[in-house]
Amino acid sequence: MKMAASPAGIAQHIEAFKKIVGEDFVFVDEESLNNYAHDETENLHFLPEVVVKPRTAAEISALLTICNKERIPVTPRGAGTGLSGGALPHLGGVLLSTERMNTILEIDERNLQVTTEPGVITEVLQDAVKEKKLFYPPDPSSRGSCFIGGNIAENSGGPKAVKYGVVKDYVLNLEVVLPSGEIIWTGSNVLKNSTGYNLTQLMVGSEGTLGIVTKIVLRLIPLPAYDVLMLVPFKNLEQAGEAVSAIFRAGFVPSALELVEIDALKIVSKFVDSTAVPVTDDTAAHLIIEVDGNNRDVLMGEMEAIADLLTQYDIGEIYFADDAQQKAELWKLRRRVAEAVKLIGYTIEEDTVVPRAELPKLIRGVKELGSKHNFEVVCYGHAGDGNLHIRIRKQGIPNSYENEEMNKILRELFLLVKSIGGTISGEHGIGLIQKPYMDIVFRDANLRLMRGIKKAFDPNNILNAGKIFD
Amino acid sequence: MKMAASPAGIAQHIEAFKKIVGEDFVFVDEESLNNYAHDETENLHFLPEVVVKPRTAAEISALLTICNKERIPVTPRGAGTGLSGGALPHLGGVLLSTERMNTILEIDERNLQVTTEPGVITEVLQDAVKEKKLFYPPDPSSRGSCFIGGNIAENSGGPKAVKYGVVKDYVLNLEVVLPSGEIIWTGSNVLKNSTGYNLTQLMVGSEGTLGIVTKIVLRLIPLPAYDVLMLVPFKNLEQAGEAVSAIFRAGFVPSALELVEIDALKIVSKFVDSTAVPVTDDTAAHLIIEVDGNNRDVLMGEMEAIADLLTQYDIGEIYFADDAQQKAELWKLRRRVAEAVKLIGYTIEEDTVVPRAELPKLIRGVKELGSKHNFEVVCYGHAGDGNLHIRIRKQGIPNSYENEEMNKILRELFLLVKSIGGTISGEHGIGLIQKPYMDIVFRDANLRLMRGIKKAFDPNNILNAGKIFD
Repeated sequence: MKMAASPAGIAQHIEAFKKIVGEDFVFVDEESLNNYAHDETENLHFLPEVVVKPRTAAEISALLTICNKERIPVTPRGAGTGLSGGALPHLGGVLLSTERMNTILEIDERNLQVTTEPGVITEVLQDAVKEKKLFYPPDPSSRGSCFIGGNIAENSGGPKAVKYGVVKDYVLNLEVVLPSGEIIWTGSNVLKNSTGYNLTQLMVGSEGTLGIVTKIVLRLIPLPAYDVLMLVPFKNLEQAGEAVSAIFRAGFVPSALELVEIDALKIVSKFVDSTAVPVTDDTAAHLIIEVDGNNRDVLMGEMEAIADLLTQYDIGEIYFADDAQQKAELWKLRRRVAEAVKLIGYTIEEDTVVPRAELPKLIRGVKELGSKHNFEVVCYGHAGDGNLHIRIRKQGIPNSYENEEMNKILRELFLLVKSIGGTISGEHGIGLIQKPYMDIVFRDANLRLMRGIKKAFDPNNILNAGKIFD
Repeated sequence: MKMAASPAGIAQHIEAFKKIVGEDFVFVDEESLNNYAHDETENLHFLPEVVVKPRTAAEISALLTICNKERIPVTPRGAGTGLSGGALPHLGGVLLSTERMNTILEIDERNLQVTTEPGVITEVLQDAVKEKKLFYPPDPSSRGSCFIGGNIAENSGGPKAVKYGVVKDYVLNLEVVLPSGEIIWTGSNVLKNSTGYNLTQLMVGSEGTLGIVTKIVLRLIPLPAYDVLMLVPFKNLEQAGEAVSAIFRAGFVPSALELVEIDALKIVSKFVDSTAVPVTDDTAAHLIIEVDGNNRDVLMGEMEAIADLLTQYDIGEIYFADDAQQKAELWKLRRRVAEAVKLIGYTIEEDTVVPRAELPKLIRGVKELGSKHNFEVVCYGHAGDGNLHIRIRKQGIPNSYENEEMNKILRELFLLVKSIGGTISGEHGIGLIQKPYMDIVFRDANLRLMRGIKKAFDPNNILNAGKIFD
């Protein structure tokens, strides 16, 4: 990945930026630039030339008007928790942080909607609506630190997606500053909308390349009163994958259905110093299964029926999490897997997604690839959605997206995913690091359409240029 | 609305069209052209120059390649049940009917998906998956005759949308023939996808202006085992509107929540010769409320709780539909309202949608407009979604979208809708007839983006040109 030459004379605009957002919110010192040079993607590092922290859509509009005129690259950034390099300022230019736009503007209990700024932490938003007995389900593992704006940019998912859908299923309307500086609303605050092209859905998952989202209207649902959680140890990894689709075929719709391979569990258990889940030698993987609803007896009945169904597989003793603390402990383990495995060298994370019933094929294929190319691999993720995170570590080479051998491995992995009907990213986005593999899942015509859409929004290619596609 | 001059010499391509799709599937006789000159929108009539009925994506590709080269307008058409004029060949040219593409290709019970051609009748598709205990919820009133392809084009809804969402929430992947003749898949058959711009969602609701959908992959859900239905007569129309949002605020999520004004009920009861619902003088409107799920006792309990909640309003005696026949009779009445009121002169139907809790404001405003402009109005629709169909009849003027006075009335109506946070169409689309009102809900920048997207897909503007926007 090349570091583009910086446009001549960004320095001359610093004063103008300061006039727009205020002296205190424009940064050119080395420490600040360094703080915004990376996200949670591997160990990539790209310095911006200036960090700007606007407070309002009007300020962003004024900033983009200058950058558009002067052809200055702008990289929008939320909390920097992204896993595909979408927030990396790989072309230098302006790093535009939304961290000061952190107000929940309105919780509309009459219409079950919330209007928020993009810099609100996802969990803060979830907790705020929960107080009103309302529920915003999409909850990426990073929900304690990621921003809702970043979730919109990546079309994030999380464990609840299997029953409740992903971010795109909750976004009703977006205020967006276009690269031209114009401010629009993409739609209306309504539950159904067939009024012109769906600009709202086009913005969701567009990774900050089409416009900067400054207000977000989300629909909410009534908060389910109860949830019940169980952990099922499988002695065979592929069988765990098979069980996932069997649960749905039997008519159940769990509110979470996660898979964690035993190696990943061992690593994270050590990392957070937890003995909550017994790590036995004959276990290959665990399924974490949750159901939720308003009737506890019904839920207990469902859980028992699912447990019954699973006795056809080679499983160990099922562990029911009875109280809030046990449940929290289990979820903590699940949520911190990525962090834990990354720390011990599994720096490459892929976000593969396949049709749910093809999970066993994916798991088998990945393990075979590992044997063939002599790399280590751990799998975990949102099995109920067919969305498996695959972490790779290979001894003797830099575990980097910039390493040629690793790129060859990843290309083979994505060819495998494609061959079983899947695609590259389920919830992390393409960003910088998956861009080289888009040809595997798309024809030239698809990419031409995407470039055409980009041009309609951003004719001068100033906004997060070089992300998703070149 | 002008009838554009036909491009010189379409006649010279008829033989080429016949070579592509076969002699028997190209029509230029007057009767055939007349059959495809209208849809269910008011009384509009535009003759195509030729009707072509391809069988495959490859044939459509060959047809579009010619039309693109020769700049021949192409109007795609499903079953012709549309209510916004989207399938009207107002520029002449080729009318491309998908009626022969009527095969359900695969019901994938392992992955809970169905792959279908666009010319399958929605109810046929629903019944086919129901046999496998699977459920495809979106069910427009016209489901007995409309095509699933048309549903994709309009992002259709129907009564179940209130719990289960609209068409866009079920579409996983689309095979599309672009105006260039290229054939693409928009995505993958996966439940979560953050791989590039969401071309799938962009196609849904694009009203046949961006490409012709030739294969559709829909996700399915397990079929709920039971549903329970009740009918609640309200003595005050606005109170019925208020009750709708009260039900959701209390934490219930009905699987249908419909409103039918008493005048509409009287008309349709007479039309289908039914006495299923008593039409009493002190009733202003009915709410039809359905809940569904897998536990009948739980559902009965929910229904009773909802009934309790509604006693705070001025309601009449609640009618529970106990058996399948009673339920079918009620749904028949609801589904045939539009047809019945149209026949007695309410030819103008609007598809307004507002935030759910603003329904009373919408109802009040519409009635006031009626008094002011001396028109008659009946309301019915998907109250749970805030989606109200408004049928208008004014004595002494042609009840037509081409009438200037009617246009003034409609502009006022949409200004009202916009002022309470709503928009023009919830599920019918913009097509030809709502096009003049797009400026009410969108800025120039929104429309410029839409035109830019159109240009990226259809640079020569051959596909359903002049629909949605000029």
